[in-house]
Amino acid sequence: MNGQTGALLTDLYQLTMLQAYHREAMSGTATFELFVRKLPPNRNFLVAAGLEQLVDFLENFGFSGEECEWLGTLGYFAPEFIDYLSGLRFTGDVHALPEGTVFFQNEPIIRVTAPISEAQIVETRLINIVQLQTMIASKAVRSVLAAPGKLLVDFGLRRAHGAEAGLMAARASYLAGFDGTSNVLAGKRFGIPIYGTMAHSYVMAHDDEAEAFEQFAESLPGNALLLIDTYDTVDAAGKVVALAPRLAEKNIPVKGVRLDSGDLAELAKSVRSILDGGGLSGCSIFASGDLDEHELSRMLETGAPIDGFGVGTRMTTSQDMPYLNCAYKLQEYAGRPRRKRSKGKESWPGRKEVYRYYDDNGHMRHDMIAEEGEPGMEGEPLLVQAMAGGQRRGGRETLTAMRERLRDQLQRLPPALKSIRESAVHPVLISDGLRRLTERMDRARL
Amino acid sequence: MNGQTGALLTDLYQLTMLQAYHREAMSGTATFELFVRKLPPNRNFLVAAGLEQLVDFLENFGFSGEECEWLGTLGYFAPEFIDYLSGLRFTGDVHALPEGTVFFQNEPIIRVTAPISEAQIVETRLINIVQLQTMIASKAVRSVLAAPGKLLVDFGLRRAHGAEAGLMAARASYLAGFDGTSNVLAGKRFGIPIYGTMAHSYVMAHDDEAEAFEQFAESLPGNALLLIDTYDTVDAAGKVVALAPRLAEKNIPVKGVRLDSGDLAELAKSVRSILDGGGLSGCSIFASGDLDEHELSRMLETGAPIDGFGVGTRMTTSQDMPYLNCAYKLQEYAGRPRRKRSKGKESWPGRKEVYRYYDDNGHMRHDMIAEEGEPGMEGEPLLVQAMAGGQRRGGRETLTAMRERLRDQLQRLPPALKSIRESAVHPVLISDGLRRLTERMDRARL
Repeated sequence: MNGQTGALLTDLYQLTMLQAYHREAMSGTATFELFVRKLPPNRNFLVAAGLEQLVDFLENFGFSGEECEWLGTLGYFAPEFIDYLSGLRFTGDVHALPEGTVFFQNEPIIRVTAPISEAQIVETRLINIVQLQTMIASKAVRSVLAAPGKLLVDFGLRRAHGAEAGLMAARASYLAGFDGTSNVLAGKRFGIPIYGTMAHSYVMAHDDEAEAFEQFAESLPGNALLLIDTYDTVDAAGKVVALAPRLAEKNIPVKGVRLDSGDLAELAKSVRSILDGGGLSGCSIFASGDLDEHELSRMLETGAPIDGFGVGTRMTTSQDMPYLNCAYKLQEYAGRPRRKRSKGKESWPGRKEVYRYYDDNGHMRHDMIAEEGEPGMEGEPLLVQAMAGGQRRGGRETLTAMRERLRDQLQRLPPALKSIRESAVHPVLISDGLRRLTERMDRARL
Repeated sequence: MNGQTGALLTDLYQLTMLQAYHREAMSGTATFELFVRKLPPNRNFLVAAGLEQLVDFLENFGFSGEECEWLGTLGYFAPEFIDYLSGLRFTGDVHALPEGTVFFQNEPIIRVTAPISEAQIVETRLINIVQLQTMIASKAVRSVLAAPGKLLVDFGLRRAHGAEAGLMAARASYLAGFDGTSNVLAGKRFGIPIYGTMAHSYVMAHDDEAEAFEQFAESLPGNALLLIDTYDTVDAAGKVVALAPRLAEKNIPVKGVRLDSGDLAELAKSVRSILDGGGLSGCSIFASGDLDEHELSRMLETGAPIDGFGVGTRMTTSQDMPYLNCAYKLQEYAGRPRRKRSKGKESWPGRKEVYRYYDDNGHMRHDMIAEEGEPGMEGEPLLVQAMAGGQRRGGRETLTAMRERLRDQLQRLPPALKSIRESAVHPVLISDGLRRLTERMDRARL
């Protein structure tokens, strides 16, 4: 999906619409906005992510010669339209919430302003890119809130929905505050710290569990996390204690153990006591297996002595809500605002900006969605320009900067919104200007 | 993710385990099996898919020079191990359920037999590939069962979890019996029929809805599906009727209309009556918007005159269960069966085969999981050899053949299992031989 081969990953209707625009010589400037209509249940806020990959896509947008040739064989498209397609690039402007920004329902995350065909043809992949990481970051941050100070590692690659999902979930969860990932390619591609333990198969391939522990510890001196639940967790903890002196003679400390099944909180207590009793108080306990923010919270509330967690499938698939109710809608064409009135899917018209207001303690008080440039707005405007004339603007941001942005915003989030159990609603107000515009358009049936 | 660049998309522990195996000179033959421990709620059966992409991955498996160099910088791996990695290929055998095969809990979907390091290192991506398509095919087939004889089109790309998820969901849903996809790249890559309509933005970019319909119909003569819910669905149906004679003069029939919001079943009835009253009985009605098998079934039960459906997000994300509880487990090493006994995650040991038994009407009666080569099995063995010595065996199968396999199997599935509302359990028996082996191992604590 590199270079100019990503453009064909789109819905057929984008191309048939483009052909109609081309035939009608409709080339006016359009503004589209991507927003989430409604927060999912169990999400008091969302976290914007995926902008970097979106800009990469838009900068390299185009159809290859071979793709154009193939499109020509479908019978839908006239040769002159295919010619036009072959030269099509994205030359527009993009405004966006910087990655790591907390946001709420109806707020534009991405605003694209470009000749209508360019703004239209990028829709499918734009949503595909931004929705995925935003959804995962918004899920992962809940584990971060549930387990403050604990080591959190993304373990979700195997059950992610394909290669890109696994890679981007590693990025999005790191952005949300995870400490790292098991995903080696994500480590190489994004510089995310990578973590690993051992699998049951390694233990099972050896005739003796203790022998497996010893060999693995020697193979990865000082870095081995020993998986102790293949047969009997408590039993295996004893084997680790028995093994420790032999390893110590070789100057190999036992770094930690991993629990992956059973009652993790209870087992952690037993294992902690066995390790401590055997002089291994420096050996950490890492837990994994069907975890999510609710499990983390529950275990930590019982005082489970667990130092870190591998959070996998449920985070990587956003299991409790594996999509966002998002839409990319035309807001303005040729200088005139537009509004969809489909039942239950009405949108606020025009080019918009989001302003954030804080109380005296620096906590977010409310947001306001307003017309771009609407006078009288005193809040902090949230959208920044990410592309100008089809080019990335302002250079690439580091993942570290995005993590810091989110961390800072979490501190300014009203505490009720940070609950992973209780629902709380952040007020998102609609400006007077936007209300007036909408009423005017509804009266005129525009 | 082509050629030899897919190997790094793995969990770090696969590499650290490989280094340990390398150091221990453990190179015996291992058999791993991929299976689903438990069917998800709302799934009476699953559909195997993704084998073709798995074999592509295994045939091309390898680390590039640049990847090896990078791995060398991590501090975990010795130079001689990196050397070994750089030459590592997959040379094993693979047995698998052919794509489109119906299967149940605990039945091996994929069985890999190879030197242990090869069988181990491919684990993460193997699960990642097979889980995704199997999950989607198993979800999509429920829409096929819910709407027999209706046109079903995958509309899910935009909210799929990334590029590969969107592409593979198009493939898996087509395999499951969908008629096509909106995904253009899936059409090119897999020869899947592609379908498209028009978006609200196209209508909104025009000052007049009827003008938008006319232009679009002229741009795509005879193939235009007009989206009629942007402002008022019933109103717009009238505009289509009014427009039809003008189009007819140009020999352009009105192929169909699409509804995307509101009470689809009720609106379809109103629209059908308006179209029929206007002499457009040949104009079909296509519906989309938050659909899944339950919605399809509900609408069709009310007699909604809908000819086809765009099924998107909920299918593509397998919304009600976005992962399968699957595992890839070591079953045998160096000629000896192995068994995991982790609490709640116990597995049946040894190399296995699945046999299917039918009743006198040709309906599936039960399956039996047995030891490979266990005597006395009279059922139909389900696993076929997909790779031998690291090479694809038997050539590529067409998607059409897979669709036919599934269609045939659906006819032989007991009717209760085909319900999308009621749970029904297909008996999966464990052979005497497998039970005896397990007992023997448990007694010996192996």
